[in-house]
Amino acid sequence: MKVNGIEIVDTYAEICEMKVCRFLITALSEDLAYECALKTTGFGTSIIMCPCETGIDCRAKETPDERPGYYVQAWHCDEKTLERQVMARIGQCVLTHPTTAVFNGLEDAEGYLEIGKKLRYFGDGFEEFEEFGGRRVWKIPRMDMDFVVEETIGYKTGFAGGNFIIMAENLPSALISAKVAVEAINKIEGVVTPFPIVSSGSKVGSRKYSFLKASLNERFVPKLRDVVDSEVPEGVKAVYEIVINGLSLDLVKRAMKVGIESACRVEGVVRISAGNYGGKFGKHRIHLHELFK
Amino acid sequence: MKVNGIEIVDTYAEICEMKVCRFLITALSEDLAYECALKTTGFGTSIIMCPCETGIDCRAKETPDERPGYYVQAWHCDEKTLERQVMARIGQCVLTHPTTAVFNGLEDAEGYLEIGKKLRYFGDGFEEFEEFGGRRVWKIPRMDMDFVVEETIGYKTGFAGGNFIIMAENLPSALISAKVAVEAINKIEGVVTPFPIVSSGSKVGSRKYSFLKASLNERFVPKLRDVVDSEVPEGVKAVYEIVINGLSLDLVKRAMKVGIESACRVEGVVRISAGNYGGKFGKHRIHLHELFK
Amino acid sequence: MKVNGIEIVDTYAEICEMKVCRFLITALSEDLAYECALKTTGFGTSIIMCPCETGIDCRAKETPDERPGYYVQAWHCDEKTLERQVMARIGQCVLTHPTTAVFNGLEDAEGYLEIGKKLRYFGDGFEEFEEFGGRRVWKIPRMDMDFVVEETIGYKTGFAGGNFIIMAENLPSALISAKVAVEAINKIEGVVTPFPIVSSGSKVGSRKYSFLKASLNERFVPKLRDVVDSEVPEGVKAVYEIVINGLSLDLVKRAMKVGIESACRVEGVVRISAGNYGGKFGKHRIHLHELFK
Amino acid sequence: MKVNGIEIVDTYAEICEMKVCRFLITALSEDLAYECALKTTGFGTSIIMCPCETGIDCRAKETPDERPGYYVQAWHCDEKTLERQVMARIGQCVLTHPTTAVFNGLEDAEGYLEIGKKLRYFGDGFEEFEEFGGRRVWKIPRMDMDFVVEETIGYKTGFAGGNFIIMAENLPSALISAKVAVEAINKIEGVVTPFPIVSSGSKVGSRKYSFLKASLNERFVPKLRDVVDSEVPEGVKAVYEIVINGLSLDLVKRAMKVGIESACRVEGVVRISAGNYGGKFGKHRIHLHELFK
Repeated sequence: MKVNGIEIVDTYAEICEMKVCRFLITALSEDLAYECALKTTGFGTSIIMCPCETGIDCRAKETPDERPGYYVQAWHCDEKTLERQVMARIGQCVLTHPTTAVFNGLEDAEGYLEIGKKLRYFGDGFEEFEEFGGRRVWKIPRMDMDFVVEETIGYKTGFAGGNFIIMAENLPSALISAKVAVEAINKIEGVVTPFPIVSSGSKVGSRKYSFLKASLNERFVPKLRDVVDSEVPEGVKAVYEIVINGLSLDLVKRAMKVGIESACRVEGVVRISAGNYGGKFGKHRIHLHELFK
Repeated sequence: MKVNGIEIVDTYAEICEMKVCRFLITALSEDLAYECALKTTGFGTSIIMCPCETGIDCRAKETPDERPGYYVQAWHCDEKTLERQVMARIGQCVLTHPTTAVFNGLEDAEGYLEIGKKLRYFGDGFEEFEEFGGRRVWKIPRMDMDFVVEETIGYKTGFAGGNFIIMAENLPSALISAKVAVEAINKIEGVVTPFPIVSSGSKVGSRKYSFLKASLNERFVPKLRDVVDSEVPEGVKAVYEIVINGLSLDLVKRAMKVGIESACRVEGVVRISAGNYGGKFGKHRIHLHELFK
Repeated sequence: MKVNGIEIVDTYAEICEMKVCRFLITALSEDLAYECALKTTGFGTSIIMCPCETGIDCRAKETPDERPGYYVQAWHCDEKTLERQVMARIGQCVLTHPTTAVFNGLEDAEGYLEIGKKLRYFGDGFEEFEEFGGRRVWKIPRMDMDFVVEETIGYKTGFAGGNFIIMAENLPSALISAKVAVEAINKIEGVVTPFPIVSSGSKVGSRKYSFLKASLNERFVPKLRDVVDSEVPEGVKAVYEIVINGLSLDLVKRAMKVGIESACRVEGVVRISAGNYGGKFGKHRIHLHELFK
Repeated sequence: MKVNGIEIVDTYAEICEMKVCRFLITALSEDLAYECALKTTGFGTSIIMCPCETGIDCRAKETPDERPGYYVQAWHCDEKTLERQVMARIGQCVLTHPTTAVFNGLEDAEGYLEIGKKLRYFGDGFEEFEEFGGRRVWKIPRMDMDFVVEETIGYKTGFAGGNFIIMAENLPSALISAKVAVEAINKIEGVVTPFPIVSSGSKVGSRKYSFLKASLNERFVPKLRDVVDSEVPEGVKAVYEIVINGLSLDLVKRAMKVGIESACRVEGVVRISAGNYGGKFGKHRIHLHELFK
């Protein structure tokens, strides 16, 4: 199968279920809201060694307080850990940021993290409860203005590990292709790319060092194509992977499709593939060829 | 004492010693290097609930591989924790980012974190050692190009908790004053502001909730000035704090001085103060008045 | 009348009819499209001394070539001058910019500027005509790829000079209020703010220098309030004006309303007014009070 | 001759003398200064159809008023036209921008444009003269604060048309190579790139349309290599040109050298050349090979 003349490998991405929480950060101005969202979602590429997986979802079209805002996602395996991590990020990066507020960002939540409910104690008795546009919020005094934070923030089962792999005749092609793909994906509400662009894929365990849990996935490294059992075809000198987490399986599929179509518009791209662990980790599979039927 | 007509309170910032590690992230282009530095330093405002304190120090004027680069700082109480945290951030946010490399960024290190030395195992036997411009580096194969990472990254005793507090007649004044101050501070090499701007100060413990380790510092909250023992003078409606960590006590002093001078250029600023814990936590004190002698 | 507690003066903005042309710039990636739109719309605040009035309208949700794109507006008094100016800007700033294309951006045009039709001669015989998604375009060879430019670009009668004036108790309040207002206005498709924010209003002619066509409008300068017949109330120390051009009178009204509502959310704003020339210049009037009925 | 393995053609860039004026724009904050510099330098790629050539030179390390600032350059053939154009840009884009000031930015001027001296009449009698740090400035009242503008702005003979041409095996390579080159050039104080990156070179006159002054330079268009007398070697699919104007011939040389070295670091670049008109236009020649002796 080809998209815009570029070969799409007959393979699949392996999708895990994880818990995702989505919240809205608003602030007095666009730049304050965006800077806060950036800081709050840093160091969140993968739960292998990051405290949780995170990403900026999208700019909000409308917000409860009519101020500019960004939706943010945080991901972890279970809701307890997720609550702890979201609490830490909101407490350290949003509560402390000028003029911000936090609202629930999920309409179809399966459950709720008690964020405002616990964070309110920071107010040391000066906090106040309020109904605000049908939401239950706490107002915690700050030095600039009250921090408004919704009592609970919804979470649900999300779908992590959507991905595709771009192989190109040189590094600049792979890089611009990946960039253009991520731009297109980021226009879709409900998905995030926890890694901006992945330059280093991993495999489980290690061939050589038994003490390692994860190591280089040498099968996608162009310079090793002649010395290992490689997935890299001749003529490919650079490879990037795009990783996508989304609120539904359909959103992940749509993001993969749009991403691949955009990636294939860039000159020098040779082949699109996807990463999986032979089905050992994820419950779901997204076959690349099915995206284009 | 007054600076540009604005009262400087006769008080001091309390400075703790912590361990700081400084490294250089380079990449093929300016935006790749900066985006990586941003992601790597997210979720790093305070070790109260963040894994470590972090900040972008400055753009590098020159780099070992002649590519654009940014110096980044990471802070923690002891070198063991710091090594673990720096390893996680470099492993998750730099190794995985397109075209990046990492070099030591301290010339006067007291000791070294074994970053490249340990990270190299990720290469699963395909990693290679090299002398590069007098540096000992490991080259770990990636999908786009080798990740070059220096064997060890220096750390030293740094000085954390430099700060000053801006009090203004309204929120926009306090906000622009803080922003202009941070811009001026960020031009100084060797210091970082782990919080962009602090809108919510804390005190140790809590008056009301005995289970809390830290809570609102109500003494700096304008709206509570009539109900608590307040530091907020009449006419002040908004307050921000700037927090500064630096490689030397002199750098922290210089950053506080430059920051205060810039803050005082903004209309509507009424008073500059500083935060301390009565000397219980920090070994060092920086008196505001001494900065302007 | 008050909005969020802030006085709205019972006055009006005076609106002129001008010719506006709207075109779409697309490119391979978001940043290329945006950088091109920025360069193309520079030096375009007012036809008093700029070659035409310009502004970035909005990011396109969809584009004919499925690439990222920005709508741009250009304004002048008559279509001949407008055609010359648009030709110069597209020829100098878009044709020469990497990977760009230009399409008509008006669905209800009154007439058409012959842009592609004339620019195609630059191709020196190597240009080719094509139907592209129902559009008539010329493909002019470039060093990176063909420049695709639509044969004609629509123009229509637009409405220029929408405005409101923010008066605040200090400069930072006026500045953040203006910034927040412009951010809100820029979310509305079909309007532009040719000046980012206006710090210097003019009046026709001069009191003192007879050779001047335009000079300072001293009535809105806070520091002159005691020496001239001033519009500035006591307690106001800074004033900004927001100027809005739009594709329809309704769009200008909507932008003024949204802008004023946003401006009034900022602390320290004292009064909102508007600028006019007593009805001498514009055919239309937008009364502030009517916006909030 | 080769640089990093890439062929440098034995040719030269042809340099014209033009008049260049350099001024400093300062503002209350970094973003205000930068936004103003951007707007002021838009629509200024080439005097073929732009009112003048312009560019942001660099961020100022120090400024007379200690605020953030950017140096800007404007270019034209003679000082009269240059004065008119600089007056229009400062009057329309800087005077009107919040909190800005303008200072002379040339230490070794050959002559002076009367900018503040003429612009001051806009103050309609309310303007005031002042000595400010050894500079003669006019303070023109504005709605936010006085506009401070130096009485005269220096100009000198500058050197325009420095250039080199990047040829690559595909468009992404050429694009990233050009981008990396421009980033490196922009770190050099005293030079500007009036075009961000040039995708469309011109020749004087036209082969086919006698009424044209300039048309496509088909010799550098990859897709025409088989049908014209082409400069494009086999295997090259995309070409970009970088154009450099500088305050001295040495600065232009240094920028070309640094730019070429950076460009040659990018994978997929095949050849570096330069553009000239056989010596018909420019007094000076910069031979590529001499840069690397």
